Amino acid sequence: MTEQTTRTLEQRVAEIEDRLAIYQVIAAYGPAVDSLNLEANDALWTDDCEYELDSGTRVGHAGLRDLLQTPFHQGVVTQGCAHVSSLPYVHLDGEDAYATNYHQLITHTDGQFKILRLTACRWHLQRIGGAWKIRKRTNMLLDGTESARRILRRAGTDP
Amino acid sequence: MTEQTTRTLEQRVAEIEDRLAIYQVIAAYGPAVDSLNLEANDALWTDDCEYELDSGTRVGHAGLRDLLQTPFHQGVVTQGCAHVSSLPYVHLDGEDAYATNYHQLITHTDGQFKILRLTACRWHLQRIGGAWKIRKRTNMLLDGTESARRILRRAGTDP
Amino acid sequence: MTEQTTRTLEQRVAEIEDRLAIYQVIAAYGPAVDSLNLEANDALWTDDCEYELDSGTRVGHAGLRDLLQTPFHQGVVTQGCAHVSSLPYVHLDGEDAYATNYHQLITHTDGQFKILRLTACRWHLQRIGGAWKIRKRTNMLLDGTESARRILRRAGTDP
Repeated sequence: MTEQTTRTLEQRVAEIEDRLAIYQVIAAYGPAVDSLNLEANDALWTDDCEYELDSGTRVGHAGLRDLLQTPFHQGVVTQGCAHVSSLPYVHLDGEDAYATNYHQLITHTDGQFKILRLTACRWHLQRIGGAWKIRKRTNMLLDGTESARRILRRAGTDP
Repeated sequence: MTEQTTRTLEQRVAEIEDRLAIYQVIAAYGPAVDSLNLEANDALWTDDCEYELDSGTRVGHAGLRDLLQTPFHQGVVTQGCAHVSSLPYVHLDGEDAYATNYHQLITHTDGQFKILRLTACRWHLQRIGGAWKIRKRTNMLLDGTESARRILRRAGTDP
Repeated sequence: MTEQTTRTLEQRVAEIEDRLAIYQVIAAYGPAVDSLNLEANDALWTDDCEYELDSGTRVGHAGLRDLLQTPFHQGVVTQGCAHVSSLPYVHLDGEDAYATNYHQLITHTDGQFKILRLTACRWHLQRIGGAWKIRKRTNMLLDGTESARRILRRAGTDP
């Protein structure tokens, strides 16, 4: 509470706006990729972004577009799918922010909806020109390997 | 940032309150319908509300009550179910707002929990007497049909 | 709107901060327990906390640690799992708050991700030394029993 009395109301409001803007970025990701809206997806990431997956790391907007154009991604979109993000835990650090949450890829297969992938996600965001963008995202499959638990254990810490 | 210096702190706080009030409406929907709390559900919607589903459109509070009294809905509630909404992307436009998210209907069947339905949702909300209410909600099944992807592609745009 | 004109901007900002701090507590729970981060989990709960489950009630930090050390919990973490919380409905009441949401335990079994448990959750939080902590959490399995629906029906009410 001491902290709150020394910070101005404007600073407190600005922090709240940061938190809600980061929620918006995370909430916008699924709708962009599940509707193959490449431009909307690009706009969420920095130019020098990295997307680290179990299968390797994609770099920049060109890398993101490659990912959305893989037969795997095109296939799940055609069948029907949702990339669902859970409510993130957000740690602000000036012009950087770190968010931790879960991600599910749910697909429609043979008339049923199944969770095809479940991952632990760490988002490093940066404020670029007043807008929060994804600088790096790391997704690790929650299949029992330690790398996913390591992401979850870092919630609330900076890099 | 230019925008922020010209808006008053009061306007910025009011916008934040709008966003959080809309989260509350969306978070209240599932608990209302999964517990057959008809009054609580009515209170979330405008008098002239529309709920558009693959199976047709329900109109007004009477239409919502009809839906909750179908054998299908009564059945899933009796078995055990959750209508789970994901974190929405919210676009404010004065007294109107548009939210986009995913919706899962998870049911308990033969001792197991299954995702029975997965939909793309678009919520049109209106501020009525100071409270945000659902004017129209559209749910489209993510089974590969284009109508669901069209909803996702509209995230962040007004009607 | 009448209410808003009589409350100061500082009071409105403080309420918003409460809401976001409660989101943070709920978003931090899953990452703590899924990575066996006992200290991080302890820090989310009050010293006199209670965690009521279908299987009984755990009391205090010692009770929470017992729960995380059961063969069941250790087993799902080893296989890969996520305790996923949905966006909560939050009711503030001074130094107390009540949140209602859904909780899924998703596990990795035989190469597949399955929803092992789906519960209705009620969180009673208290502000202790300026930080929101979990005083009591109640989880009831959504398997058709009335106790889970009773939790959902209480969304928005105090104890």
